[in-house]
Amino acid sequence: MRPDDANIAGNVHGGTVLKMIEEAGAIISTRHCNSGQGEPCVAALARVERTDFLSPMCIGEVANVSAEITYTSKHSVEVQVNVMSENILTGAKKVTNKATLWYVPLSLKNVNKVVEVPPIQYTHKEQEDEGRKRYEEQKLERLETKQRNGDVILPVINPDRQTKEPHTVGYSQSSLIHLVGPSDCTLLGFVHGGVTMKLMDEVAGIVAARHCKTNIVTASVDAINFHEKIKKGSVITISGRMTFTSNKSMEIEVFVDADPFVDEPQERYRAVSAFFTYVSLSKEGKPLPVPQLLTESEEEKRRFEEGKGRYLQTKAKRQAQMQQAAQH
Amino acid sequence: MRPDDANIAGNVHGGTVLKMIEEAGAIISTRHCNSGQGEPCVAALARVERTDFLSPMCIGEVANVSAEITYTSKHSVEVQVNVMSENILTGAKKVTNKATLWYVPLSLKNVNKVVEVPPIQYTHKEQEDEGRKRYEEQKLERLETKQRNGDVILPVINPDRQTKEPHTVGYSQSSLIHLVGPSDCTLLGFVHGGVTMKLMDEVAGIVAARHCKTNIVTASVDAINFHEKIKKGSVITISGRMTFTSNKSMEIEVFVDADPFVDEPQERYRAVSAFFTYVSLSKEGKPLPVPQLLTESEEEKRRFEEGKGRYLQTKAKRQAQMQQAAQH
Amino acid sequence: MRPDDANIAGNVHGGTVLKMIEEAGAIISTRHCNSGQGEPCVAALARVERTDFLSPMCIGEVANVSAEITYTSKHSVEVQVNVMSENILTGAKKVTNKATLWYVPLSLKNVNKVVEVPPIQYTHKEQEDEGRKRYEEQKLERLETKQRNGDVILPVINPDRQTKEPHTVGYSQSSLIHLVGPSDCTLLGFVHGGVTMKLMDEVAGIVAARHCKTNIVTASVDAINFHEKIKKGSVITISGRMTFTSNKSMEIEVFVDADPFVDEPQERYRAVSAFFTYVSLSKEGKPLPVPQLLTESEEEKRRFEEGKGRYLQTKAKRQAQMQQAAQH
Repeated sequence: MRPDDANIAGNVHGGTVLKMIEEAGAIISTRHCNSGQGEPCVAALARVERTDFLSPMCIGEVANVSAEITYTSKHSVEVQVNVMSENILTGAKKVTNKATLWYVPLSLKNVNKVVEVPPIQYTHKEQEDEGRKRYEEQKLERLETKQRNGDVILPVINPDRQTKEPHTVGYSQSSLIHLVGPSDCTLLGFVHGGVTMKLMDEVAGIVAARHCKTNIVTASVDAINFHEKIKKGSVITISGRMTFTSNKSMEIEVFVDADPFVDEPQERYRAVSAFFTYVSLSKEGKPLPVPQLLTESEEEKRRFEEGKGRYLQTKAKRQAQMQQAAQH
Repeated sequence: MRPDDANIAGNVHGGTVLKMIEEAGAIISTRHCNSGQGEPCVAALARVERTDFLSPMCIGEVANVSAEITYTSKHSVEVQVNVMSENILTGAKKVTNKATLWYVPLSLKNVNKVVEVPPIQYTHKEQEDEGRKRYEEQKLERLETKQRNGDVILPVINPDRQTKEPHTVGYSQSSLIHLVGPSDCTLLGFVHGGVTMKLMDEVAGIVAARHCKTNIVTASVDAINFHEKIKKGSVITISGRMTFTSNKSMEIEVFVDADPFVDEPQERYRAVSAFFTYVSLSKEGKPLPVPQLLTESEEEKRRFEEGKGRYLQTKAKRQAQMQQAAQH
Repeated sequence: MRPDDANIAGNVHGGTVLKMIEEAGAIISTRHCNSGQGEPCVAALARVERTDFLSPMCIGEVANVSAEITYTSKHSVEVQVNVMSENILTGAKKVTNKATLWYVPLSLKNVNKVVEVPPIQYTHKEQEDEGRKRYEEQKLERLETKQRNGDVILPVINPDRQTKEPHTVGYSQSSLIHLVGPSDCTLLGFVHGGVTMKLMDEVAGIVAARHCKTNIVTASVDAINFHEKIKKGSVITISGRMTFTSNKSMEIEVFVDADPFVDEPQERYRAVSAFFTYVSLSKEGKPLPVPQLLTESEEEKRRFEEGKGRYLQTKAKRQAQMQQAAQH
């Protein structure tokens, strides 16, 4: 991990980790999909399941990323990726992330054609059954989020601190605009999912820092669905706004809108959206209280309540898992 | 702003800022030029007006870059770009740059064809008149600089400190050689203007540091004209030499020569040239006196006098503007 | 040199230096090969002779890389590259590297065709004779190493510290996996030799740091032969294992295996292999003793003895050179 991968406090950006995870997933799933007799293809990221950042990584540490294919349907591949940070001077190691990604293989000759995936061998019948269950669940959720596509939000590069009160939504709302270059893209000429996630985390981090004015780090990312491809030469606008704060965390909603402004006359479209959760840390790395978000409009109040719902649901799920773990 | 964007003292390189400005300009003008019914095109940088660096930016700050189209002629677009630095922890903001750029849209199918620009709407008649005046002025100046193309200078990677006296022109003269890769280029396969400017600032900074042996920062850049495109796969030689020093500033002339060494037998050509002004700063960020440049040849004395002329002219212009501002 | 070019102690990675050397070599040899009447071509790296890292380079220093063509055969070019580091604030300069590289020009239209090289002029007859001798020697060695292609080693991302004893080969053995993107490649769509060497040095550095748990730097690299091209879109696995330790140095063998997993059904192949020598430094930059490598299998013992042979041979050669230098 290099200086440019981290914030001023030396903590590696969540986005850098997400980009590495996605690169590992893309490699293993593309390799698998080309291992049969089918036509040449490149795996495109379709979905990332909810990911927790279990412990921070620092400059100078080595990141160990390992990936494994855990399920294949006819047209998609599930990949499990684990990330460990290793201090090679002390030898200390920590698990930093466990992520599940879904890929779809697109033909190299015709990017609109989805290629068939060679099936994997399962050691137990249950592995296949559990994988199929996960496959059906994520398929359902992808359909749902395609409909609830998120309202249009105006890009705000530079929040208006003169007219907005601190800790309001408008005060920290932020945007980045990025021109998609060749090194952002796969062999098919579409943006790597990991590049998109890195930019999303960057915006979310700016929103969180503007709200808290402290050192902030990514705590988790909700499931992200990649509905639309983004082509080389597009301009993408990544916008983030705070939706909810608990005592020690804040939730930021991030939208990616693509503008394919050359070559083909096409409307701007919503390509991705997701919720990032951040925490605020003291100089010693201890969690700090987060200033409460001031909601002004009815819309903001509604989003705050929805965020609270997600927060309580995640908390309940985690407690259930801990109890389950304690029983075993 | 990341560690790699800045010098050892933590000040962001002027070239990094110029690259961001140009990226914003390229996005807004390409988007505008594709908004009509015309053929798909990419905006290519033709000229950047004189730019001052009003205050330095630091690692960890967020750069806010905003761009607006202020004039359109039949075949060119004028873009006004403003840059602000924001310390997101304290909330402090400073204007760091205001720049004016001219773009020309080139057809995506035939890069030698200039496409027509859709006209913009002006809120006042005066806006259009003033824009037309700026357009005519820059057109004239571009014609002039095309003729005075600058003498050939030999690339000097490593100035000969054994045989040259400190503070002579030869002592600090420097060059960089860069192979143009895919990530340096636009969709048309030509180098981004911002990439060229970043490399020019890098050379100018090396010349200034060799002369002063202190922490140096970019204070301003004179108008830059981009006469010739530079193709992917070219080798470019960026050479800089000091032309003039005042008590607290130094002027460095920078040349970009392109060598299209593969694919087409073509002579090396002068692609861009410009004057950069640098100042020397103490560890506390206070301006330091600059050692006077020792001119040896008649040529060097002539260039020194020309530099002095530009220096006095800029100084007079600035004083006139301040008086005008004081009257309002 | 920027923060990302260096390790935590501020020493520039050997791989960064190798990449700059190769870029200079590629530029000068491509330019030369296109200077005649022949068809357009791009020079591809075929071999780098043994290179010593004479003194470390630091963040903030300027690297001066100069290259010269010293011999041409019908189908290859020998380039001599010198690297100096310059502290532009103090003016201090040090020679950091002297390297010899061999390039082969490949046609831009048909990458499998080697183009004829225009001959250079020699000032003395001896220069040509000595060049021809070096040419014949390296040709012979390239043939030899093509046969001894190195055994298959399994990529180990994350050595198993629970089951392996410290200072064994298995304890520090490491791998990197990299997806070859557009900015890694030449105009022909093949990986730059310099990019490959940078990744090789990265792996070797991780192996060395895992073994020593101290600040480590590259001391030298044995001759590297590039037998096989690596195409854009390939996945490369770079694996390193320690082969030998002396009192103050360690030798690491590095392998690059390419997996052209899309587009063409082809087997994984061994593209490059080389030996890197590292030393361990204290915080004050003084050489530290290196813990002895514990060899377990017969294979490991055999490789240790071979490494010892290379070590003693290099040592004898260096002493002979010093005596020769003392006599002159």
